[in-house]
Parts: sequence; structure tokens; C-alpha cells
Amino acid sequence: MTTVAAYAALTAKAPLERTTIERRPVGEFDVLIDIKFAGICHSDIHQAREGWGTAIFPMVPGHEIAGIVTEVGPGVTKYRVGDRVGVGCMVDSCRECDNCKAGLEQYCVKMPIWTYNAVGKDGEPTYGGYSENIVVDENYVVRIPDGLSLDVAAPLLCAGITTYSPLHHWNAGPGKKVAVVGLGGLGHMGVKIAHALGAEVTVLSQSLRKKDDGLRLGADHYYATSDPKTFEDLKGTFDIILNTVSAPLDFDAYLSLLRTDGALVNVGIPEEPVHVLLSSVFGNRRTLSSSGIGGIQETQEMLDFCAEHQLGAEIELIGADQINEAYERVTASDVRYRFVIDAATI
Amino acid sequence: MTTVAAYAALTAKAPLERTTIERRPVGEFDVLIDIKFAGICHSDIHQAREGWGTAIFPMVPGHEIAGIVTEVGPGVTKYRVGDRVGVGCMVDSCRECDNCKAGLEQYCVKMPIWTYNAVGKDGEPTYGGYSENIVVDENYVVRIPDGLSLDVAAPLLCAGITTYSPLHHWNAGPGKKVAVVGLGGLGHMGVKIAHALGAEVTVLSQSLRKKDDGLRLGADHYYATSDPKTFEDLKGTFDIILNTVSAPLDFDAYLSLLRTDGALVNVGIPEEPVHVLLSSVFGNRRTLSSSGIGGIQETQEMLDFCAEHQLGAEIELIGADQINEAYERVTASDVRYRFVIDAATI
Repeated sequence: MTTVAAYAALTAKAPLERTTIERRPVGEFDVLIDIKFAGICHSDIHQAREGWGTAIFPMVPGHEIAGIVTEVGPGVTKYRVGDRVGVGCMVDSCRECDNCKAGLEQYCVKMPIWTYNAVGKDGEPTYGGYSENIVVDENYVVRIPDGLSLDVAAPLLCAGITTYSPLHHWNAGPGKKVAVVGLGGLGHMGVKIAHALGAEVTVLSQSLRKKDDGLRLGADHYYATSDPKTFEDLKGTFDIILNTVSAPLDFDAYLSLLRTDGALVNVGIPEEPVHVLLSSVFGNRRTLSSSGIGGIQETQEMLDFCAEHQLGAEIELIGADQINEAYERVTASDVRYRFVIDAATI
Repeated sequence: MTTVAAYAALTAKAPLERTTIERRPVGEFDVLIDIKFAGICHSDIHQAREGWGTAIFPMVPGHEIAGIVTEVGPGVTKYRVGDRVGVGCMVDSCRECDNCKAGLEQYCVKMPIWTYNAVGKDGEPTYGGYSENIVVDENYVVRIPDGLSLDVAAPLLCAGITTYSPLHHWNAGPGKKVAVVGLGGLGHMGVKIAHALGAEVTVLSQSLRKKDDGLRLGADHYYATSDPKTFEDLKGTFDIILNTVSAPLDFDAYLSLLRTDGALVNVGIPEEPVHVLLSSVFGNRRTLSSSGIGGIQETQEMLDFCAEHQLGAEIELIGADQINEAYERVTASDVRYRFVIDAATI
């Protein structure tokens, strides 16, 4: 075991503070990663504040991890010391179920082992990216292509794959109309990726406050959802609505914006129960669905795609002592568009 | 105009009685059909009793029509006198919208012209199949293959296409697990068609009362939904759940029965608002959707498929004077599996 500096919430809703954690020794198939950057995802806050239910404390959040390999186990074949790598939301899964075998480890029927707020196969709690280093099985590590800086690549490990996977699965591309609901950490990557895939992209945001940004990031259109006229004008328009907002919405109104065979895909998970009228999916074979991150192979594919199209996240780089302030600003939607912790300051 | 005998509800919720209606003259592209058989669909009852909202009276229900062509307009090219034909839920649509052009007339953005309880392009109310004959544009008429008797073919025009279309769209076939919820008029055709498509078929019914029938019709498995163990045993099982029940269900429980990328498709429309928890679509990219009948070309394809596989409906043939009694029995789920009116008795 190695003692490592980290930022942790010691109890639910407590501010994060500097502490130390133990990392397991590098096993046969493990990679030791010197963390360079860690993104702050809204789900870090949901979990640190127990918004999604009982959590494990102390909690070291962080599942948008970019760093450099500093040691590999004797059985490792995919990575070498010095490689630029990333770790996302999961660090293992059962590897035996149909979903794992199909490269859909995120839907592992026994539940993936999440990067933090989970228990590893060794029976010990997992700790995330707000720390100096991390030990991960090579099969749950991805390569960050040379064309992407590590700081803007870090958020791709969650915000990138969470938007790329559904856009890819529901066939966003030329001739398709995609709406991205919410222009935050996820939404801004959704806009960039949908645009790069060739779709016609509309941002649906509460106000027009970030309109200039949205258009700059690749949106073709930008509407305020606070204006009821938006829902009249856009009725029956979209092939895909990617909802990145975790606050409850009027889902019936959003479903009415789908054209025939369109899909409303949710990637933000509300803390409170939200109800949808069954009748809102009637009329034109529209679907209501969800998507969760992506598989390991697909995450690699997303990173390669983002490198090819030069799609890094838009970030605000912070020191570790600014984490609590950043949490407040994320909660207030006051970030353009992702806080990334410089791990050298931990 | 021609005066024609028919059975109609003169006001909402009134028993149906024998009356006369006017049919339009046979126009350039029209076909006059001597109705031989008309199925009784649960949606006839929903509408005659205004369960789905304000309706047009007098109402002649019936959108499962099988008969013989007795006259054609001068511009008609598809049908000749003597042809065996069918008419389903719609008798026209705008023909100009994307959906109409794509053969999805049932999702016409201006709304299809329904076979009854609607207003035709001539501004007159439409009247359905509980009558001696009907005049329909040839483009909304389908051919009943020689291999199918007209009586067992009639219900295919709604119950057949309503189940065939979603099974086909969501790729029911070998290797796929399909659940059919409800073994009524729609459900029994869903079982037959899903089985003929090569899927592994499970019936989910309130009780095991119709189990023998279900297995005879092609189901591989049969479960009672009144038994909570059913929902434990079948968690994460199905690729497609075809819900043919219009009564409200616990949709959250049914959604939990879907495997990764599975779809819960509703073809029964509840009269009351039904709510679904958004969180019930989270976890494995499952979808909640609906489907309505099918397009004209697809309806023809369904009839050809049913003829090839000898899939007629299981029917109880009745005289027109038994319609009101039949309505009561349908409402009580006491029919195996479709009442068909012998139109010679009208």
C-alpha cells in the first residue's frame, strides 16, 4: 500500500479537505498513473452531498482523470511507463455478463465498479481522481492521443463519453437534427461532438445568456426554454434530444419536440422522482430513453474522434484549494464549462 | 349519394342501433366495397363511449373491414370488380408530409382521416365498417391474399397491423425475446406474429386462465402478472415488450423486465392519464415508446406475411344484432379473441 495525498469529503455534505488515502500495490495487470488533471463533474457533487442516496465516506471524488503511466504490473501489455492515459467513471466490472462481453461494461449486470464511492474487487473502497495517483487495471484505462492536451482531455472521460455514446448510438450525423438541452459541462461537449458528427445542432437552454458561446461551440440554433414560444415553434422537429440537465424538466413538453422515430435521451439523473405522462410517447413512435457514459472501447473511440476533430473541453483550471468554491459555482451553473483541478496542487 | 344500412351509436354511450347513412358517389380514384365482415376492436368501444374524448355522432364504428370490390372509379388502377380487399383505420391522409411520403401515413402530421369518427376531405363525417358498403380511395385499400378467408382476415386490418408494425420495426426475430402483455384481440395476433417472425415469445397476462390458448397460439412461456414473482424472475429479460393493454399498468415494473437496449412499446391507449417514473428508463438504455397501426404499404406486407404463415385471427362470428352484447363482453375481456360481424346481417 502507498499513502497518497487526496482531497476528500470526510462526511456527507462536508466541504472537501486535504487528507491521505491508501492506494493498493501495483498488481499483475495494474497501471500506476500519476494524475495530472482531474475534472469536476456535477455527479461528484451529487454523490459527495448524498443527493443520489447513501454514499461511502471518506469520499475522494473525480472520474475525469488524465495522467501519465509511472509503473506497470508484469502482466500489462497495453501500456508502458510514460504513456498518456485516462480513467473515467469505472475501474472494473464483472467481465462475464452479456453486457461486459459486448463492450457495454457500463451496463454490467453486476454493476460496474465505479471509480469512487464503490467497493473494489479487493473489498476496499475506491477513491477517485482528486488525488496524486491511482492504480487501475489496464483494461479500464484508455489512451489519450498525442493531439489532445491532458487538461482539456480530462473532462472527456465523463462529459465527452456521456454525450458521444448516445449521439453515436442514436445515429447523430448529416441530415439529423439534434437538440442539446443545457449548455453546461456535458452540454458543451454534446454540442461540439454533435456538430463534428455532421448533425444540425440546436441548443435548448433556460435563457439566451450563453448564446454566443453555443454558436461558437458549433450550434446552428439556440433557443430559450423559458419562452413558451420555443415549444410551439419546434414541435415535431428533432431526431435526437440529448438532455444533459439533471434538474427536473417538463418532459412531456420536450417529448413533443421529437419528430417521427425521434428519441429523447437523458444523461442527467435527477435527484428527485420525476414523472412522465405515458401519452407523451404516443403519436409518432418517439422514444424516451437514457444513456450512461459508454464502454471502454467506445471511450477510446471517442478520444480518438475528439483528437481527430480537436475537440477538447472548455475548461477553467483551478488549484485543489478552490474545489469547494468550484462546487458552489457548478451548482449555480457558473462555469464555462468545466473546472479541472491541477493535480500538482493537491 | 347512396343510402346504406348501418349500425350506429346515435349519441355517446348509447347502444348501437340499425340506421341508414349516406355514402358518397364513387369518385375517380374510389373503390366501392361490399363489406362482408367487420371486426369489433376495443377502440370502437372507447370512441363510441367517448372514452378518448369528444366524438362525432351518429357514429358507425368499424375499422377492420374485409369485402369485395363492386365498382371502381375511372382512374382506379390497382383494383378491379371482384377483388378481395380490406380497409383499416384510415381512409386518407395529407399525402404531402414527410411521414406520408415515407409510407408512414398513420403518423401524417396533419392527422390521417380515420375510417370513422373523423371528417373526410369532402367535409362530411366518415362512417366505418358496421355497414353494408364503403367508398374508399384506392390508395387506402389493401388486397387480401387468396390464402386468407375474409372473416379471419378482417381483424388483421387493425389487430394484425398494430402488432406486426412494432414487432417488425423493433426487429422481432430469431434470437430475440418478445413479451406480449395481454392476450386479447391485439395480444393474440401479437403472439402469432412474433412466433412466426421467429422470436421467443412470452405472454404476460393477469392470470393463467388463457395459458393453454397462449401456448397453442405460439407462445413459448406464459406468466401471470398478478404474481409478484413474475417481475422478479423476468427482470432484465426482454428485447421487446409489446403492451396491448389499454388499462393502466405499473409501467415502472414492466420497464424493469427489459434487457439492455430493450423497448417497451405501447399500442393500447389508456383513457386516463398514466405516469411513468423517468428513472425507470435509466440503467441499460431501455426505451419507452408507442406504435400506432402501420402504413398502407406495411399493412399490405402484413397481410401477405399472414397469408404466407396462415395467420388468421381467432374469431367469434356474430350477427349485427349482437353488437351491444359483444361490446359488453369485450369490456369484460370475455372474447376469444375477436368478434367479427357478419355484414350480411346488417
